[in-house]
Amino acid sequence: MTVGETSFAHQPFEGIATFGHQPFKSEPGGADVTILGVPFDGTVSGRSGTRLGPRSIREQSMCLWGYNNALQVAPFKDLKVVDAGDVRVVPPDVVATHRNCELAAASVLESGSRLITLGGEHSISLPLLRAHAAKYGPLSVVQFDAHPDTWDQEYVGHRFSHGTPFRRALEEELIDPDGFVQLGIRGPTGSAQDYADARDCVTRMLTTDEIIDTGVPAVIEEIQNRLAGRPVYVTLDIDAADPAFAPGTGTPEVGGLTSRELLQLVRGLAGLQLVGFDLVEVSPPYDPSGITALLAANLAFEFLSLLAVQST
Amino acid sequence: MTVGETSFAHQPFEGIATFGHQPFKSEPGGADVTILGVPFDGTVSGRSGTRLGPRSIREQSMCLWGYNNALQVAPFKDLKVVDAGDVRVVPPDVVATHRNCELAAASVLESGSRLITLGGEHSISLPLLRAHAAKYGPLSVVQFDAHPDTWDQEYVGHRFSHGTPFRRALEEELIDPDGFVQLGIRGPTGSAQDYADARDCVTRMLTTDEIIDTGVPAVIEEIQNRLAGRPVYVTLDIDAADPAFAPGTGTPEVGGLTSRELLQLVRGLAGLQLVGFDLVEVSPPYDPSGITALLAANLAFEFLSLLAVQST
Amino acid sequence: MTVGETSFAHQPFEGIATFGHQPFKSEPGGADVTILGVPFDGTVSGRSGTRLGPRSIREQSMCLWGYNNALQVAPFKDLKVVDAGDVRVVPPDVVATHRNCELAAASVLESGSRLITLGGEHSISLPLLRAHAAKYGPLSVVQFDAHPDTWDQEYVGHRFSHGTPFRRALEEELIDPDGFVQLGIRGPTGSAQDYADARDCVTRMLTTDEIIDTGVPAVIEEIQNRLAGRPVYVTLDIDAADPAFAPGTGTPEVGGLTSRELLQLVRGLAGLQLVGFDLVEVSPPYDPSGITALLAANLAFEFLSLLAVQST
Amino acid sequence: MTVGETSFAHQPFEGIATFGHQPFKSEPGGADVTILGVPFDGTVSGRSGTRLGPRSIREQSMCLWGYNNALQVAPFKDLKVVDAGDVRVVPPDVVATHRNCELAAASVLESGSRLITLGGEHSISLPLLRAHAAKYGPLSVVQFDAHPDTWDQEYVGHRFSHGTPFRRALEEELIDPDGFVQLGIRGPTGSAQDYADARDCVTRMLTTDEIIDTGVPAVIEEIQNRLAGRPVYVTLDIDAADPAFAPGTGTPEVGGLTSRELLQLVRGLAGLQLVGFDLVEVSPPYDPSGITALLAANLAFEFLSLLAVQST
Amino acid sequence: MTVGETSFAHQPFEGIATFGHQPFKSEPGGADVTILGVPFDGTVSGRSGTRLGPRSIREQSMCLWGYNNALQVAPFKDLKVVDAGDVRVVPPDVVATHRNCELAAASVLESGSRLITLGGEHSISLPLLRAHAAKYGPLSVVQFDAHPDTWDQEYVGHRFSHGTPFRRALEEELIDPDGFVQLGIRGPTGSAQDYADARDCVTRMLTTDEIIDTGVPAVIEEIQNRLAGRPVYVTLDIDAADPAFAPGTGTPEVGGLTSRELLQLVRGLAGLQLVGFDLVEVSPPYDPSGITALLAANLAFEFLSLLAVQST
Amino acid sequence: MTVGETSFAHQPFEGIATFGHQPFKSEPGGADVTILGVPFDGTVSGRSGTRLGPRSIREQSMCLWGYNNALQVAPFKDLKVVDAGDVRVVPPDVVATHRNCELAAASVLESGSRLITLGGEHSISLPLLRAHAAKYGPLSVVQFDAHPDTWDQEYVGHRFSHGTPFRRALEEELIDPDGFVQLGIRGPTGSAQDYADARDCVTRMLTTDEIIDTGVPAVIEEIQNRLAGRPVYVTLDIDAADPAFAPGTGTPEVGGLTSRELLQLVRGLAGLQLVGFDLVEVSPPYDPSGITALLAANLAFEFLSLLAVQST
Repeated sequence: MTVGETSFAHQPFEGIATFGHQPFKSEPGGADVTILGVPFDGTVSGRSGTRLGPRSIREQSMCLWGYNNALQVAPFKDLKVVDAGDVRVVPPDVVATHRNCELAAASVLESGSRLITLGGEHSISLPLLRAHAAKYGPLSVVQFDAHPDTWDQEYVGHRFSHGTPFRRALEEELIDPDGFVQLGIRGPTGSAQDYADARDCVTRMLTTDEIIDTGVPAVIEEIQNRLAGRPVYVTLDIDAADPAFAPGTGTPEVGGLTSRELLQLVRGLAGLQLVGFDLVEVSPPYDPSGITALLAANLAFEFLSLLAVQST
Repeated sequence: MTVGETSFAHQPFEGIATFGHQPFKSEPGGADVTILGVPFDGTVSGRSGTRLGPRSIREQSMCLWGYNNALQVAPFKDLKVVDAGDVRVVPPDVVATHRNCELAAASVLESGSRLITLGGEHSISLPLLRAHAAKYGPLSVVQFDAHPDTWDQEYVGHRFSHGTPFRRALEEELIDPDGFVQLGIRGPTGSAQDYADARDCVTRMLTTDEIIDTGVPAVIEEIQNRLAGRPVYVTLDIDAADPAFAPGTGTPEVGGLTSRELLQLVRGLAGLQLVGFDLVEVSPPYDPSGITALLAANLAFEFLSLLAVQST
Repeated sequence: MTVGETSFAHQPFEGIATFGHQPFKSEPGGADVTILGVPFDGTVSGRSGTRLGPRSIREQSMCLWGYNNALQVAPFKDLKVVDAGDVRVVPPDVVATHRNCELAAASVLESGSRLITLGGEHSISLPLLRAHAAKYGPLSVVQFDAHPDTWDQEYVGHRFSHGTPFRRALEEELIDPDGFVQLGIRGPTGSAQDYADARDCVTRMLTTDEIIDTGVPAVIEEIQNRLAGRPVYVTLDIDAADPAFAPGTGTPEVGGLTSRELLQLVRGLAGLQLVGFDLVEVSPPYDPSGITALLAANLAFEFLSLLAVQST
Repeated sequence: MTVGETSFAHQPFEGIATFGHQPFKSEPGGADVTILGVPFDGTVSGRSGTRLGPRSIREQSMCLWGYNNALQVAPFKDLKVVDAGDVRVVPPDVVATHRNCELAAASVLESGSRLITLGGEHSISLPLLRAHAAKYGPLSVVQFDAHPDTWDQEYVGHRFSHGTPFRRALEEELIDPDGFVQLGIRGPTGSAQDYADARDCVTRMLTTDEIIDTGVPAVIEEIQNRLAGRPVYVTLDIDAADPAFAPGTGTPEVGGLTSRELLQLVRGLAGLQLVGFDLVEVSPPYDPSGITALLAANLAFEFLSLLAVQST
Repeated sequence: MTVGETSFAHQPFEGIATFGHQPFKSEPGGADVTILGVPFDGTVSGRSGTRLGPRSIREQSMCLWGYNNALQVAPFKDLKVVDAGDVRVVPPDVVATHRNCELAAASVLESGSRLITLGGEHSISLPLLRAHAAKYGPLSVVQFDAHPDTWDQEYVGHRFSHGTPFRRALEEELIDPDGFVQLGIRGPTGSAQDYADARDCVTRMLTTDEIIDTGVPAVIEEIQNRLAGRPVYVTLDIDAADPAFAPGTGTPEVGGLTSRELLQLVRGLAGLQLVGFDLVEVSPPYDPSGITALLAANLAFEFLSLLAVQST
Repeated sequence: MTVGETSFAHQPFEGIATFGHQPFKSEPGGADVTILGVPFDGTVSGRSGTRLGPRSIREQSMCLWGYNNALQVAPFKDLKVVDAGDVRVVPPDVVATHRNCELAAASVLESGSRLITLGGEHSISLPLLRAHAAKYGPLSVVQFDAHPDTWDQEYVGHRFSHGTPFRRALEEELIDPDGFVQLGIRGPTGSAQDYADARDCVTRMLTTDEIIDTGVPAVIEEIQNRLAGRPVYVTLDIDAADPAFAPGTGTPEVGGLTSRELLQLVRGLAGLQLVGFDLVEVSPPYDPSGITALLAANLAFEFLSLLAVQST
C-alpha cells in the first residue's frame, strides 16, 4: 500500500516477499538482472525440502539493506532488478521441469537480462547451463560445492539428478573443459574413483582443505588467472559452507568453509566476465533459525554486486 | 514466469507468496475484495512475533485450492480478489501505525472493495473499525477471542494496546452497543471485574464452555437472530482456538475451541450483512509446523467465501 | 547384544529401530505379517519429507508395549511379525519406484504373509493395490483421507502422483467399484467438480462433518454392512487426522478427525476380511515432537491387531 | 526492581520466573501453599527431559493473570503462596533423590502449608505420598494418567521408577485401597495382565474411552461420592492429555483427553478434602511452542484454586 | 529448599533461574555487581523476541561453574553479585521504558554497585549510558556489534530505536567522542553514507574483516592504548558473533566473529577502567538449542570476571 | 527387500538404520570391527537426552558414502564391520548399566573384533576402559573433550557419573598415567583446583586455546611422539566441538574447536596403535538439524578409517 507510506526504507518483516523487495514481473524484458526461482527437489539423494528454498531465500532477502560495503556498489540502484517468480515444476518429471527451466532462462537471456537463479536442487544447473551456453557458447564454470556432482548415470538410478548435472553438461559440451573450477569439495565418496573421475573432467578441483592450506587470496588469484577473459557461469551449492553455517541443506558435509571464507571467495570473482549464476540446495525444513537462507540471500546479493561492479 | 507454463494449477510451494496466489496490487481500485497485511506486534503482552503473521498466513494460503465445498462457492472465481501487501508500520509508535492502518483501510473501502485484514496483533482492530464505521456507521461486531480485549488504559501501561481495542472503539462509538458478540472467552483474568466489565460493554459474551454447553447450532441461531440486518464486522483472534490447534500465538489459553468448531461458527455467519473482517495474533515463531497459519489462512478463506455467498 | 540382557522388555530408546522391535528379515517367507517401508516423496504437491516417514514411524513404534487393551490381542505374540526394511526407490522415477514396490509386495504376498506398508506418499497405494489385486481379485477399499486422491492426469502434471492413485486403480480395475469407501474428506478443492468426480467413482464418500454428524458407531455399522464378506484393503493417509493431532504431513487440512475418532473407526473394521494395509504421508520434518509418527505407529499397531483378531 | 514501577500488573515476559510471580522463599513457614519443584528424570522409560519441567512450568505460569473465572476465586490473593524452589536431586540415585524430596515435603507440611509439587517424573509421587501420609494417614488418591504406574519391580529393571510409584505406595500402605481412582488410562501395555493387575490394586480405573462414554459430569459425580470426606491426594501426569494438547512429555499416548475435558475433571474435585497435589512428566525438549507447560501451569493454577475454594 | 541439601554445587537444571544461581534482590544496596534485565523489543527492525532474552540468558547462566580459568578469577566468590530482576517495560512506549531503565540503573549505581544489564534490544543502551554518564561523566565506549547503530531519526520511523542509541548518546554528550570504538561491523547498509556517517561519529570503527586481517592481539593492543585511563562502558550486541554461533538474534549478519574471537576480544579489555556493561539482542525464539543464550551468559560471565580482575 | 534391487548404492533415507548400512549382528564373532550403542543418560549434569544419541548417530551415518578421501581407505570394504545394536541399560542404575556395558564390550573383544562405542554419556568410558584394559593392560588415552571429567566423588553426588570416569579409571589403574592426553578443555570450572587436579592426573592437558596457539600439526606431532608404540584408547566427547558445530549436547561450552580442526586432530592419530574408541554425549533433542549427529557419524567413520589404515 502506498497509503500510509513513511520516509524510511521497507522493514524486513514488511511486504510481499520478493527478492530484496524488488518488483515482481513475470514477463521478461526491461531488466538488467532477473531473479528466478526453481522450487524443485525431485532428484535429491538425502533429505528433501529444497522446493521451499526460493521462498525462504526471498523471505531472508528482505534483510538486505542495499549497499555492499565490501564491493562498494548498490546493486538495487545501479541495476534494474526484477523478481520473475518461479518456474513451473513437475515434481515427478525431472525432464519436464528441466525443459520449463531452460525455456524460462532462455527467455530471460533473450530479453537482454542477466539471470540469477535460486534453487531448488542442483540438477537445475543443467538446463540453466543449456540456456546460457546457447547464448554465450561453452562456458567456464566456477562451482562452490561439497560434492563434485559429476557422477555418471547410476547415482540415484536416473540419468538426471542432483549428483550428475556437470557430467551431463560436459557431455553436452556446455562447459569449456579448460575452465571448470570446483571449490570446497570434501567428505566421503563411494570410492576413490569418484574424485579421480571428477579430477578427470574438471580443470581444477580444490578441496576445502586445499583452499585453507593454499589461502583464500592465492586461490582467488589462481581463479582470476585461469578464467580471465572467458564467459564464466557461477554455481553455488550452499553445502559448500559448513553445516554450522548452513544447516538447512539436504546433504550436509562436515568440515566445510565458514561464511566469511565463502563470501571472500565469491567477492574474489570480481573482474571476471560473469554471465550467469545459480544458488542451490537450501532446504528450509532443516533451517529453524533461517541462517542458511540468510547466507544464501547474502551470497545472491554478492552475485548482484558482482554484476553491478561489472556494469560500472 | 509464464514461460514453461503447464496446464495444472499452481502448486502450494510455487510462486511469490501473495494470498491464495492472487495478484499483488498496491494501489486501491478494481477489486471486490482486498487482502491487506498489518505486520505489527508493538503492544503485545505475552510473546512477540505477530509482525511475521501476514507473511506466514500468505505462505500457508498457497494451499487453498479455491472451491469451498462447505459453502459451495469459489471465491477466487466469483470475486475479484487482490493482495495489497502490507501497511507500513512503525514498531515503536502505535499511534502512527494505527494512522497508517486506518488510511490504508479507508482508501480500500473508498475504492468500493471489501477488506480482509491479516494481523499483526489485535490493537489494529481499532483503526480498522474506524475506517469501516466511517463508511457504514456504528458496526455490529462478532469477535472470536479467548480474551475480551475490553480492558481500560492500564493494561500494558498504554491507552492503545492489544488488550484494549474494543474499549476504545466503544468509547469512540464505532461499535453498536446492541450488536457486539464475543465468542470463545476463557481463562484466568486479573480479577472478577474483568469479565464483569466486559459483560457490561458487550451485548453478549459467550465463553468457550457456554458455546459447547449451548451447542454450536444454537449459538449460530442466536447470532443470526441478534445481528440480522445490521452491518457486521468480524474480528477473529486466532487464540479463540485451543493451543493444540493454534500453538503459534502470543497469549495462548488452554481449553479452547477446536478448528472444526471454529470453522462451523464462522460459516454460521453466512447470510449476515458482513462488511469487514480481520484475523489477528498469528505468531510464526511459535508455529513450527505451520498449522496455526494454515488455520488462519483457511479462516480467511471462509471470510472470502462468506463474501462470495453474499455476492451471489 | 544378548550380553548384558536383563529380564525386562526392551525400552523405547534402545536397539536398532525396526517396527516394534520385531526382527529384520529382508527375504520373504516364514512370517504371518510383514512390515515394509516405501521411503518415497517424489510426487507430492505440498511439503516434501515423506521419504523419512518409514524411519520415523519405526522409531516411534518402539513405544508400543505389545498388548492391545481395546481389541484384547497381543499381535506380536499371536502373529509372527517381521520387518522387511524398505523398498528401493528412485526419487526422480515414479514408475520405477512403483515397479519395485509392486514386486516387493508381490513377493511378500506370495510367501503367504500379509503386508502392512509404511509410506512414503500416497501414490504408492497404486502398486500395492496391483500386488494385492493380483492375489485377491478386485478389492474393496477403505480409505481414510482428507483428500479423495481420485484426480485425473493433470494434477501435478503427471499421470502418477499422490493425488491420483485411486483413479488409476479404478481404471486398472483393481478396486471393486461397489466397495470403495472414503472417510474424512474435507477442505477446499479446485472446483465443485472434484467432489462430484470423487463421488462418481467412489461407492461412499463420507466427509469429516458427515462422520461426526452421523456418529462414529453408525458409520462403522454402515461400513460393516457394505463390505462384509469382501476382501478389503485399508489405506490410511495420516492427514485424515486434524493437524493438531498430525502436524507432520505434507498437505494438512484443518477441521479433521481427532486421534480417538480415528482409532475408533479403524478398530471398527474388526471382523471384515482384511487383506492388506498401508499408512502414508507422515512427513517428519514437520513433526518436531514426533506425535504424528507416534499416531501412525499406533494406527499400524491397530492394523496388526485387526489381523490378530482375524487369525483367532 | 521497584524503581521504575508502574501501576499495571507484571507482564508474562518480565521478572524472575517463580510460579505465578509469587515470592521465592526457600525456608518453610508462613505460607498457605508452597510450590516445590523436583527436576528429576532419572527413571523414565521413554524420552528424558522432565528435569527441565519445573523451570518450564514456572516460565509459562507467568501468564496466569490470577482470577479463576470458572471457580470464582483469586488464589494468589486468597492464599499466601510461595515458591520454595527445587529439591536437590541426584540424577543417578533415585533413592537419595526420593529422600530429599520426602524431607522437603515433610518440612513444608510441618510448617502448616499445603504443597503443590511440580515434576520431574512420576516416581516422585512415592516420597510425596510418604510425607503426606505421615501427616494425614493413608490417603485417597485421584490419579490422572495414561498409564497405571502400578507395575511391579521389573519395569525398567529397578524397584523405584516412574512406572511403579503407586505399587510401592500401596505396599507401604500410604494409599487407602478403597479410595484410589485412576482417570485417563489408555494405550497398549505389555500384556492383558497389566490392566488386570492395575484393576486389582486400584479402587476404580477409568480408561479415557470409559470417561467419554460415561460423560464427564457423571464421572465427577462418581468421584465425589466415592471420596467424600476422605483426605485426597491428587497426582496428575500430563500424559493424561492427548499428545495434541501435551506433546511435551516422555511417554505420550495417542487417543487422550482434551485440555477442556481435563480442566473440567480437575475442577470437578472442588469440595473434596484435598490435602496435596503433584503435576508431573512435562518434558520441555518436546514442547517447542510451550503449550504443554502452559497446560501444566493452568492445571497447577486449578489446584491452587481448589485450595482457595476449600479455604473460603 | 535447604532441606535435602547435599554437598555438591547446584546443577544447571535446578533452582529458580537467577543469573548464575546468585541471590535475587530487588532493592539496590549491598552488592558489588548487580545483574539487571530489560525485557524489551519495542523498536526492533527485524525479527522480534528479545523481550525473552533476559530469561533465556539467566536459564543458560545456570551452567556457569564459577571459576574463570582464562582470567583466573572466581567472580561469584570475589564479588558480591545479586540479580535485581527486570526493569518494568511498557512495550508500546519506548520513552517510558527508557525512563524506567535509567531510573533503575541510576539507583543501582547510587548504591555503589556496578551494573551488568541484559537486554532486550539495543535501544536500552541510551538510558544506560545516561545513568552511567551521570555518575562518571562522558564515557569511552567499546561496542561489539554487526551494525553501527548510529543512524539518525528516520530508521524505523522513530527517534529512539535499536538503530540509533549511539547517535542519540553522542548528541546528549554521554559518549567521549575520542573514546568510541566499534568492533565487528559488517554487512550491507542502506548506502555508502551509513559507514561514512558512522566513521564520522565513531573514533575507531573496525569491521570484522579488519579485525581478522589485523589480528585479535593487535586489535586488543590498539584498544588498550586508546582507552587506557578513561572510564569505559562496554556494550555487546550478540550479532557481533556469526549466525552460526548466535542464530538467536533479530538482525543476524553473516560473516561474523567466532565465539572464540569474541571471547578473546572481551578478555582483552582486562586492565581498562571498566564502569558498566550491557549485553543485548538475544532473541530466544530463534535459538532452538540455546547456544546463543549460552554464549551471552558466558560473555556476561566474562564481564563479571573483568570486574573481578579489576577489584583485585 | 532384495526384491526391487537396483544397481546404485543405498540412499541415506532408505533402510533400517544400522551404522553405515552395515549388517546387524547381535552375537559377537566374525567381525573386524563392531559398533555398539549405549543409550544411557542417567548421570548427566546438564540437559538430558543422550539416551537417544546412538539412534540419531546411526540415522545420520546413512549418509557416509564409504570411501575416506583424506585417509584413502574404504573401511566398510577393507574391514568386516557389524552393528551389534545397543547394550541393555537400566536408567536408574549406573552400576548395572556399567556392568552390562563392560560385559558386552568384553565379549566383543574376546571375539577378536575391535570396538567402536556410541554413547550415551561419558560415564560409559569407565566400563569400556575396564574391558579394554583387561585385554591390553593399562591404556594410553586420547580424550577429546571440553571438560576434564576427572572430578572426584562429589560431582552430581555420586561416585560414578559423566564427570568422573577418568578419575575412577586412574584409580582402577586402567590408564597408563604417562600416556593420558586431553584435547579441547575450556570454559569455567568450580574452582582453580579443577584444572590443577586434572593436570595432576593427566599427562598432557591441552586447552582449546593452547591447541590453536600451538597449531594442529604441532599438536599431532606431540601426540604421535608421546604415544608411539603404546596401546591407545580414544574417547571423544562431542562437546569438544564448539556449540555452533555441535549444538546437540548436554553441557555445551562456547569457544570450542571447529569440525575441521577436530577432523584433522582425529586423522592425526593415524599410525598409532589404536585399540578402542568411544564417541559420547550427542543429545538429539538439542540437534534440530541433525548436524551434531552428522559430525559424530563422520568422526566414528574416521575411527573406522584409522582402523582400516592400521589393518593395511
